[in-house]
Amino acid sequence: MTADDLVSLRRDLHRKPEPAWREFYTTARIVAELESRLGDELAELHVGPDAIAGEHRMAVPDDAELTHWYERARDAGIDETVLERLEGGYTGAVAVLERGEGPTVGLRVDIDALPRAESDDPNHAPATEGFRSEHEGAMHACGHDAHATIGIGVLERVARSDFRGTLKVFFQPAEEVVGGGKSMAESEHIRDIDALLAVHIGLDHPTGEIVAGIDGFLAVSHLEAAFTGESAHAGGHPEQGRNAVQAMATAVQNLYGIPRHNDGTTRVNAGVVEGGSAANVIPDEARIVAEVRGETTELMEYMKRRTRRVLRSAARMHDCEVDIETGAEAPSATSDQELVSVVADVAGETAGVERVLERDELGGSEDATFLMRKVQENGGRACYVGVGTDHPGGHHTATFDVDEASIGHGIDVLAGSIEQISRRQS
Amino acid sequence: MTADDLVSLRRDLHRKPEPAWREFYTTARIVAELESRLGDELAELHVGPDAIAGEHRMAVPDDAELTHWYERARDAGIDETVLERLEGGYTGAVAVLERGEGPTVGLRVDIDALPRAESDDPNHAPATEGFRSEHEGAMHACGHDAHATIGIGVLERVARSDFRGTLKVFFQPAEEVVGGGKSMAESEHIRDIDALLAVHIGLDHPTGEIVAGIDGFLAVSHLEAAFTGESAHAGGHPEQGRNAVQAMATAVQNLYGIPRHNDGTTRVNAGVVEGGSAANVIPDEARIVAEVRGETTELMEYMKRRTRRVLRSAARMHDCEVDIETGAEAPSATSDQELVSVVADVAGETAGVERVLERDELGGSEDATFLMRKVQENGGRACYVGVGTDHPGGHHTATFDVDEASIGHGIDVLAGSIEQISRRQS
Amino acid sequence: MTADDLVSLRRDLHRKPEPAWREFYTTARIVAELESRLGDELAELHVGPDAIAGEHRMAVPDDAELTHWYERARDAGIDETVLERLEGGYTGAVAVLERGEGPTVGLRVDIDALPRAESDDPNHAPATEGFRSEHEGAMHACGHDAHATIGIGVLERVARSDFRGTLKVFFQPAEEVVGGGKSMAESEHIRDIDALLAVHIGLDHPTGEIVAGIDGFLAVSHLEAAFTGESAHAGGHPEQGRNAVQAMATAVQNLYGIPRHNDGTTRVNAGVVEGGSAANVIPDEARIVAEVRGETTELMEYMKRRTRRVLRSAARMHDCEVDIETGAEAPSATSDQELVSVVADVAGETAGVERVLERDELGGSEDATFLMRKVQENGGRACYVGVGTDHPGGHHTATFDVDEASIGHGIDVLAGSIEQISRRQS
Amino acid sequence: MTADDLVSLRRDLHRKPEPAWREFYTTARIVAELESRLGDELAELHVGPDAIAGEHRMAVPDDAELTHWYERARDAGIDETVLERLEGGYTGAVAVLERGEGPTVGLRVDIDALPRAESDDPNHAPATEGFRSEHEGAMHACGHDAHATIGIGVLERVARSDFRGTLKVFFQPAEEVVGGGKSMAESEHIRDIDALLAVHIGLDHPTGEIVAGIDGFLAVSHLEAAFTGESAHAGGHPEQGRNAVQAMATAVQNLYGIPRHNDGTTRVNAGVVEGGSAANVIPDEARIVAEVRGETTELMEYMKRRTRRVLRSAARMHDCEVDIETGAEAPSATSDQELVSVVADVAGETAGVERVLERDELGGSEDATFLMRKVQENGGRACYVGVGTDHPGGHHTATFDVDEASIGHGIDVLAGSIEQISRRQS
Repeated sequence: MTADDLVSLRRDLHRKPEPAWREFYTTARIVAELESRLGDELAELHVGPDAIAGEHRMAVPDDAELTHWYERARDAGIDETVLERLEGGYTGAVAVLERGEGPTVGLRVDIDALPRAESDDPNHAPATEGFRSEHEGAMHACGHDAHATIGIGVLERVARSDFRGTLKVFFQPAEEVVGGGKSMAESEHIRDIDALLAVHIGLDHPTGEIVAGIDGFLAVSHLEAAFTGESAHAGGHPEQGRNAVQAMATAVQNLYGIPRHNDGTTRVNAGVVEGGSAANVIPDEARIVAEVRGETTELMEYMKRRTRRVLRSAARMHDCEVDIETGAEAPSATSDQELVSVVADVAGETAGVERVLERDELGGSEDATFLMRKVQENGGRACYVGVGTDHPGGHHTATFDVDEASIGHGIDVLAGSIEQISRRQS
Repeated sequence: MTADDLVSLRRDLHRKPEPAWREFYTTARIVAELESRLGDELAELHVGPDAIAGEHRMAVPDDAELTHWYERARDAGIDETVLERLEGGYTGAVAVLERGEGPTVGLRVDIDALPRAESDDPNHAPATEGFRSEHEGAMHACGHDAHATIGIGVLERVARSDFRGTLKVFFQPAEEVVGGGKSMAESEHIRDIDALLAVHIGLDHPTGEIVAGIDGFLAVSHLEAAFTGESAHAGGHPEQGRNAVQAMATAVQNLYGIPRHNDGTTRVNAGVVEGGSAANVIPDEARIVAEVRGETTELMEYMKRRTRRVLRSAARMHDCEVDIETGAEAPSATSDQELVSVVADVAGETAGVERVLERDELGGSEDATFLMRKVQENGGRACYVGVGTDHPGGHHTATFDVDEASIGHGIDVLAGSIEQISRRQS
Repeated sequence: MTADDLVSLRRDLHRKPEPAWREFYTTARIVAELESRLGDELAELHVGPDAIAGEHRMAVPDDAELTHWYERARDAGIDETVLERLEGGYTGAVAVLERGEGPTVGLRVDIDALPRAESDDPNHAPATEGFRSEHEGAMHACGHDAHATIGIGVLERVARSDFRGTLKVFFQPAEEVVGGGKSMAESEHIRDIDALLAVHIGLDHPTGEIVAGIDGFLAVSHLEAAFTGESAHAGGHPEQGRNAVQAMATAVQNLYGIPRHNDGTTRVNAGVVEGGSAANVIPDEARIVAEVRGETTELMEYMKRRTRRVLRSAARMHDCEVDIETGAEAPSATSDQELVSVVADVAGETAGVERVLERDELGGSEDATFLMRKVQENGGRACYVGVGTDHPGGHHTATFDVDEASIGHGIDVLAGSIEQISRRQS
Repeated sequence: MTADDLVSLRRDLHRKPEPAWREFYTTARIVAELESRLGDELAELHVGPDAIAGEHRMAVPDDAELTHWYERARDAGIDETVLERLEGGYTGAVAVLERGEGPTVGLRVDIDALPRAESDDPNHAPATEGFRSEHEGAMHACGHDAHATIGIGVLERVARSDFRGTLKVFFQPAEEVVGGGKSMAESEHIRDIDALLAVHIGLDHPTGEIVAGIDGFLAVSHLEAAFTGESAHAGGHPEQGRNAVQAMATAVQNLYGIPRHNDGTTRVNAGVVEGGSAANVIPDEARIVAEVRGETTELMEYMKRRTRRVLRSAARMHDCEVDIETGAEAPSATSDQELVSVVADVAGETAGVERVLERDELGGSEDATFLMRKVQENGGRACYVGVGTDHPGGHHTATFDVDEASIGHGIDVLAGSIEQISRRQS
């Protein structure tokens, strides 16, 4: 059973979803919560630019967008002292608990939301129970509100345990745009981690299931293509236009038609498109925001190459230019068996957990892989943990929601595993 | 030579372009100008809801959009007494000059701008001479700033002449969306018009050319298609999505491929498209704002039928729904020979006019056709006049501009024609 | 009323349709008919290589194809002496009647069929009345069987009249591929023509209508694009293929989407496509046979340029090569008013003719334009005549047929006009 | 080292490639070879209709096609007594060797070629060494010429060994169209098989590698879509056409864009397309021969559903009809570990074999799965064996060829395994 205060924290975060690098309210709320719950018990609490390596941020929105969200957070009445440190899109936090000799354990949770509208269907619990998104066009549609809550719950639990060593919880911004993981992996805080856990809720596993060791992260790359043609009066001189929307549509059709690859899974999505200015003007501008993925980095690169070819040829076909920018990217990673076993053991003895799977494939991407790889490169170990939750809609859809009972399962399994790691190593 | 004060009026309007039904500043500025120039000489000055039949407005934007532009106009320091009458998107004006017995002559000028960005290229005169659009994303790219100026100039000129009869100048809003013509055609002001002139500048004719009688207006219809699919995680479960952007792209490709028709000219344009929410989400929404045109109403209807078929089939193909709304429409119209001859005669004797064409084909659409047809139905006559102007960029492009000398030509030819009509009928 | 013997001649030709440059039976049958009907009355009868300038033939099929049809004609029992002169695809004939002093008048009729199957629907008269095509996949679907018949009928009629001068009837091959007109226009026989008539039946005009002067011929150009990619096992290694069919499909979609042009009518058609070898092989070859047309040569050239751009970009998009060959082309032409008047006058007095139109637009292409232009360049006059006929299906469709009564109208109007031209000039 | 006589047999088969159900020469040649090599040693030799369950043949070509190949085989001078039994496309053979008590072991080899042209590049060994395909448009591009040769070699080797039991070699027709496997699986000959081996050469494994147990066969389904529209004159009345080629191109574009699936590998290929009749006719007919595959039958069914949706919607979009026929299909199958171990052990001790892999994924389809599943259902075991060969071009490409040394490896490993199976069971 998840404590009422954690449920109400999760719902407050759900009500105020903030997309990548705009987690102003979210970060400040997390900091406030940590200070109120743990206060002086925390050895360190790094916020914003102190929590991340700012120069490694990827996919940061423009100033106008940042300002808009910054002001919205301020208007929501959150602590301005914290807020000011986040200005310019330096969000996120790292909380450190020191309990004497012992291993340094990390837990990574992500905290950003998605730029999509939330359902107001009466069957959608947040809508009927009063915690639907107050930010039109933004939504916690992937459970990061629950992740942030779990991070706080784990800190509190471990602080009350006989844990020996150091625990660092990474509240990571900008996962959805694969933009924040690298900036945390490049920060100094990651360097001494002996064991890193990362967590995700749901992923088609029901409440009561725990996956010890999720693998199969797809390498991912974001691309943005801007087509430029020439406008003309659509009635008077259609032949004088160079139609950027025709180029874009041709590209979209052929992007989805990039051949599947025998070496493994690939993905492509033209996630955002737009173009043109008025019905009676031949469109001179159009844009595609796309992503490609691959089971390996090579497969991702194959998709990138083919994507570029499609984009360039579609532009040429309609006598347009195209400017292609590569955005954020993330590699793949694999969980270490030693940690997989620890988590599986602990999960097997956790109340409410009915089924434990050792290893499962994700089939998506995650920039936790930056942190996992960094820890592994430094000789440490890493494990990605799945916490089942009944979710009515799929991830990233308008009716996604979590079963709040699973927040408790997450805290129990992760805190238990952290304590167990400490015991094994001492 | 165009008077300096008219040039500076035109430039002020150019600086403050307002798209359809948002001509708050523009209307108030025209009213202010008329009052300052003609004052009590005007018999009537109908503004906003008094100038148009409000229930016949088409393609009116939503309240938020109207409010945004309304407030921008207010902030520009224009007369609030006039402004208040325009609230809710009731823009435009009809000015009436009465000079005793004689025919009732109408002149229709349109006053709205386009929702497109203006060039800041150093070769673009408005940019270097300081009257480039101050409204980012809006531009007078079709010369309606010159049209409004001509309307005022003609009123002033006729008021100073020996004209006998009544002159009504229709400052029509919302031509670019084909949304305002009908509301003026359905107003009471049109009913007693014996002879109607309408004017357009440019149309690929250079400065010094006058076209007496433009025909070949294409009938036009606007459509908006909203595709709805289902979102899904693009990496994790692409197969669970129903991709609205794929449906949209398929539709765009096939819209432009609707067969040409042996009975005459047809057009189609997917002028604005957009869809999707994030790179990693299968898009569940997409939208096309399109227009179709035909040399006759039948051809326009043919294009509409084929467009609907394409849109519906593209939706089905990707398991999406599509909601299609028909927007504004306009018919075609033909100039009456009697007025064509008057205008040609007057133009032939106007200083600065080097070439007069009787009749030319437009190949575009115009909702002046609503007014022309109404006048003709009532037994009056109508003529659409083209005033040549050297324009560096094509109509509706970012570098469109007018040769201000042509404003004077327009005033001379139109005022001269109006006086001649009066003389012939009395 | 058309004479029974001409009806049965037309039906025999209908039964044995031969596409471009394969008119072996057709030419031999025409020659046989002329000899039987006119014998020594003909001053000259040029056949095959003597009738045309062989080096100007366009779109000649390959030897295997020619041989196939040649043998089929031989097997049909036609005169081998004539047949041998046609070998290698030198088909067509020019028959000359000399009747003393007077103008040299030309009549051009085309004689080829289309490579398309004929309907066997019980409502299709040729099917039920026993003269449906005996050549599977070929059909007289444009009435050239009637044209050839008219040519013979006119010769016979003029021979029995008081005509003074010289009459040349050009039985032209390969009109459907726009491949034969030039070879007749470049022959010596055209040089001394003072007045040329050309004829087409149908064109959406019903039986009893005559069009004196058809204009609006579209300039036309044929193109053939051969895409080459690389094959691969479609299940095992789809990524190793370079898919020529994807390239071709992308091209087809975008060819039909080439922007309409303000200067006038344009057309594009991907009339034949094919590609690939087996379901489980990524296709390494694909082909498009297309044509483009324009109201003027410039518009046709515009379409060609855009077509090439589309083809090349579509190939690049899928990493394929494309080889583009331009095939046969034809210009446009206009009828001379003097002949238009002659034909209109004669038609107005012809029994069975209920309506005479002076000038109409065709909206298609015709390589009679080569002959018309050549005559006009030499100071002569030309006129294209339409002879209405009730045709159940459209031109080029499986159910096209002619009302045989119109064959008589054609003979009456053309022979009458030829006699009238002779009278006027003498 | 492969015996010279086997090399020359393989080359003879390579020279005379025959696609599915047209293996007239091939079957007769195999029969002749068996009789000459083994004569009375064979207990049974079932040919054509006696080898297969004829009513279960799938994807049989039409009579004209069968006759064409039948006559070609006859003209090549092969034994007519055998040939006559194959008439109507009943090809293939089953050879039975009986050696007393012991297990009944099966070996399945396929014998058909592909309908694709073979390279005449000087680097392509068959071209320079004189055994390039003599059948234009057909080629052994997947090594089935080597498979047939291996089948004969194994029979001969086992006949000379101390093998105890029964050996049946299935020379299966029509694998490439997934059309023959079922007819052999449904024959009586399969019923008593205790252990079945199937073999494929190459598959990207070099000479010297053996794969004991290939899995990951994709389930496959063939589809053929015939679009019917309406023809029209492309210049005169494009609007009257209903363009089947536009429908087809739209379908192709969207078929390749069917979303990838999270549950596993999927494939789609529009392997053959064709449409239209002439450049100047709007195409009224078009055809796509496609195949879809899936890692599981469910995934294949998902692809089929989406394919049907695409085809139907593309037809509707262009006002065409579409007739969709499902062709041949095959399921997936898995090798039994017990046989995998036998083959691996034998291969490990075979001269020339440098590397043995236990289990590998194919990523293609194979209708050997019908036989494997049937044997497994009856309580027997099955194993699919890969024999590495250096192949210059990929499978199904114009430059595919095999390293003939691998034919010997195949015979050694398979014969050795068959003997070992016999030893273990007795």
